[in-house]
Amino acid sequence: MADINTIGAQFTEFYYKTFDAGRNQLGALYRPTSMLSFEGAQTLGDAAIVEKLTGLPLDGLVHKISTQDVQPLDGGLLITVTGQLLAGGETNAQFFTQTFHLKPDGGSYYVQNDIFRLVYGL
Amino acid sequence: MADINTIGAQFTEFYYKTFDAGRNQLGALYRPTSMLSFEGAQTLGDAAIVEKLTGLPLDGLVHKISTQDVQPLDGGLLITVTGQLLAGGETNAQFFTQTFHLKPDGGSYYVQNDIFRLVYGL
Repeated sequence: MADINTIGAQFTEFYYKTFDAGRNQLGALYRPTSMLSFEGAQTLGDAAIVEKLTGLPLDGLVHKISTQDVQPLDGGLLITVTGQLLAGGETNAQFFTQTFHLKPDGGSYYVQNDIFRLVYGL
Repeated sequence: MADINTIGAQFTEFYYKTFDAGRNQLGALYRPTSMLSFEGAQTLGDAAIVEKLTGLPLDGLVHKISTQDVQPLDGGLLITVTGQLLAGGETNAQFFTQTFHLKPDGGSYYVQNDIFRLVYGL
C-alpha cells in the first residue's frame, strides 16, 4: 500500500488537473455526505458541490501548488495545500489554501471535508 | 451544546492568545497521539510538540485571524484559519494558514492534527 504522502500527492495532482480542465468531472470525488466551504459559503453533497464548483467564474485559471502537507486521520488523510491561482499570461497570482479530508471507501478515498480560502494581502 | 462555529471560534481565540502569551501552556491541548506539521517538519506527541512550539523564533509576534472555517468531522471539528503574523510595530505582515482537527474527549476536545504553513509571495 502506498504511503500517505504518495496518495496525497496523487490526489491533489488529479484534483487540480481535473479542476482546471473540466470541473464537472469532480463529482466522482465527493459523496452525498461531503461538505465544501468555498470562501465561507457552505455546500452539502456531491451534486450541489459540483454545481457550485462549475458555477465559479474561474475559467482559464490554473492552480499551481506551492506546499502540501499530509497527515493520517482515522484511516483516511488530512491534506493542506497552499498555492497560486494563475490566469493565462498573467504573473499577478492569487494565493489560496485548501484543506481536504479524504475518507477511505473500499480501497479508495473520497472527499468528506473540503475548505477553500483565498489568502489576501498582495 | 454550542454549535461547532462557536466551539471553533472559542478554540482558535484561546489557541492564539495562549500561543502569543506563553507557548509552553499549549501542551494541554495536545495528546501523545497528536501530530504537528510546522512548515513541513513533522512532530508527534504533546511533549515533542510543545518543545517544538516553544523553540520557534517567534517571540513578540502576534497572530491576527483573517478567516476561519469550521466543519464537523466524525464527532469532532475541522478548522482552517488564515491570518497574519504581525511583529510589534510592524505593518509588513507574514500570512499563514493553519488547520486543526479537534477530536472529542469526554465533553472537551484535543488537537489530533495540526498543520501550519506560511503563505509566501509578498
